[in-house]
Amino acid sequence: MGGVSARLEDLPLRADLRGQTPYGAPQAALPVALNVNENTHPVPQDVADDILDSIARALHDVNRYPDREFTALREGFADYLGHGLTREQLWAANGSNEVLQHILQAFAGPGRTAFGFSPTYSMYPLLTRGTGAQWVSGTRGDDYTLDASDAAAQVADGAPDVVFLCAPNNPTGTPLALDVVEAVYDATDGIVIVDEAYFEFAPADARSALTLLPGRERLVVSRTMSKAFAFAGARVGYLAADPALIDALRLVRLPYHLSALTQAAASAALRHAPVMLGMVDEIVAQRDRISATVEALGYTAHESWTNFVLFGDVDDPATTWRALYDQGVLIRDVGIPHHLRVTAGTADETTAFLDALASVGSAA
Amino acid sequence: MGGVSARLEDLPLRADLRGQTPYGAPQAALPVALNVNENTHPVPQDVADDILDSIARALHDVNRYPDREFTALREGFADYLGHGLTREQLWAANGSNEVLQHILQAFAGPGRTAFGFSPTYSMYPLLTRGTGAQWVSGTRGDDYTLDASDAAAQVADGAPDVVFLCAPNNPTGTPLALDVVEAVYDATDGIVIVDEAYFEFAPADARSALTLLPGRERLVVSRTMSKAFAFAGARVGYLAADPALIDALRLVRLPYHLSALTQAAASAALRHAPVMLGMVDEIVAQRDRISATVEALGYTAHESWTNFVLFGDVDDPATTWRALYDQGVLIRDVGIPHHLRVTAGTADETTAFLDALASVGSAA
Repeated sequence: MGGVSARLEDLPLRADLRGQTPYGAPQAALPVALNVNENTHPVPQDVADDILDSIARALHDVNRYPDREFTALREGFADYLGHGLTREQLWAANGSNEVLQHILQAFAGPGRTAFGFSPTYSMYPLLTRGTGAQWVSGTRGDDYTLDASDAAAQVADGAPDVVFLCAPNNPTGTPLALDVVEAVYDATDGIVIVDEAYFEFAPADARSALTLLPGRERLVVSRTMSKAFAFAGARVGYLAADPALIDALRLVRLPYHLSALTQAAASAALRHAPVMLGMVDEIVAQRDRISATVEALGYTAHESWTNFVLFGDVDDPATTWRALYDQGVLIRDVGIPHHLRVTAGTADETTAFLDALASVGSAA
Repeated sequence: MGGVSARLEDLPLRADLRGQTPYGAPQAALPVALNVNENTHPVPQDVADDILDSIARALHDVNRYPDREFTALREGFADYLGHGLTREQLWAANGSNEVLQHILQAFAGPGRTAFGFSPTYSMYPLLTRGTGAQWVSGTRGDDYTLDASDAAAQVADGAPDVVFLCAPNNPTGTPLALDVVEAVYDATDGIVIVDEAYFEFAPADARSALTLLPGRERLVVSRTMSKAFAFAGARVGYLAADPALIDALRLVRLPYHLSALTQAAASAALRHAPVMLGMVDEIVAQRDRISATVEALGYTAHESWTNFVLFGDVDDPATTWRALYDQGVLIRDVGIPHHLRVTAGTADETTAFLDALASVGSAA
């Protein structure tokens, strides 16, 4: 183009965005990337082949707009989730971030508030403010757990329009008992979102908040294909709720928000759910190995029902993070003092992390 | 689930959404669908094969989050558009609707206004209100054209934060001269979006607003792959602007908003731009055939630089629309009195439409 580029300050940006910097975990090309809770196991080749066949069929009609109601995909999610759910209770979007954004656009937005128990998923406040609503933080116990009566009291006190319950919680890994969901639901007239992004990594006998949906029309259970389904690159989040709540989301979603390729890929992957979820047990085993080993090194491993471990008693997280980085291992400093978070990778990746951490030395 | 579903009125929906109904052109399975300005020519098989190869490669890493900066795709758009553009000036999202939403989130939103000359693309007011901003309508001449000094005066008078110039205009097909863009830009301190969704269907010697970008840091030129590229199902919109404006969009986009599959598919399609655009001339020929034939039938065909024709002097649009529907031809009643809009299809589809229209009888 030639000429000198303008600066952001030269543009009529909204006042509330001035001085902000974009969200972003670093996307560094390190050999062992355990920083964003991805599933580090690739999609098995036979599943990838079937997904590709479905995409090939979708390409025949890609000149046409996609099914705005993504009916087949919603049926696929209903089948996968079970609990008697039907497609009328399902919704999906480009990643769970967009799913959550749709809820906030319909039920929060300017003049309203959304609430979550800190520390929790860092996108909740960003998504909330992005829709013009105000974010309100509640508190957790010392071990990051939530107690039903305390949680309900905080929600009743805050009177938010939308409550986020991350179950299990990111970035701490903490399980959430269903009595907390019930108590919080009863303590508010607002929407209650139980974000089960990591639910597939919970113990096999863990009960999903999906079991609480009947009779609770303000309850939403969100999920993602990014973690257990190893589908982060495909950007597919979804939720289950009362059909009336789904109708509300139709008012705020952009028309044709889910591409025909996304619909085809996700529907195909769901047909292979048992295979796609086959690596979950292995990841859980690596997660438990991480917990045991960091404890043996003198750190504190917080209980995790997810595919990652938050560990404490780190003397100087920035120094430890850098030492691991220099050995080709990328983990995450989530901003909790004296803590770091690591994703459970393959056995080899986990070994690389544990060896690198051991070489840094034991906790103080 | 059992039990009776709640009603939308039972939920704590935002007040400004109450009573609304979802956007949507009917998605009816008719033999000849010429209602939403799709490119009715499928993607050629050899191009589809190459797209599929690229998607297959992307599936190898689909367990990882996609490149948040979609660098390769932005380079592809810069190469395709020419005019010396570089990837720092490019942006993309899931359809041009999301591209426009990003601009509105950054530069409009609550307490601000967006402006367009009515009748124009029906999503502009919906997107504007969806971000909490207010929509303001300007007016066009009787033939839907815009005059530079009149348009500038209307914009100066309205003092909007964002101005939409649809060039050529949907749903009227009307060309927009670049002197209008220049005059409007000089008449505002706000963002000026020139929406060139249909630009590839303009005469070969038509000048794009891309030529006006140097030195105009508040100017945005948006495009889509949905029309000329026959890629509506893939949901890929994009824009070119000053790098500082692109930085502003990074503040409001959801992280990883473009899937790895979308990035792969769009990048591959761009490599085949000459083939993908090969059907444009044929569509333009069918468009001109529609204009000539509806005129011969006594209707008024408005000048079109797009892949559709708006025709007037329709006695009763609802009756004509229904008569065509009953013959298997779906066109669009865009709400302009005594007008209907039809997309230029293949030669056969166009013939089916023209024959059906002729069978309805000539204009009054």
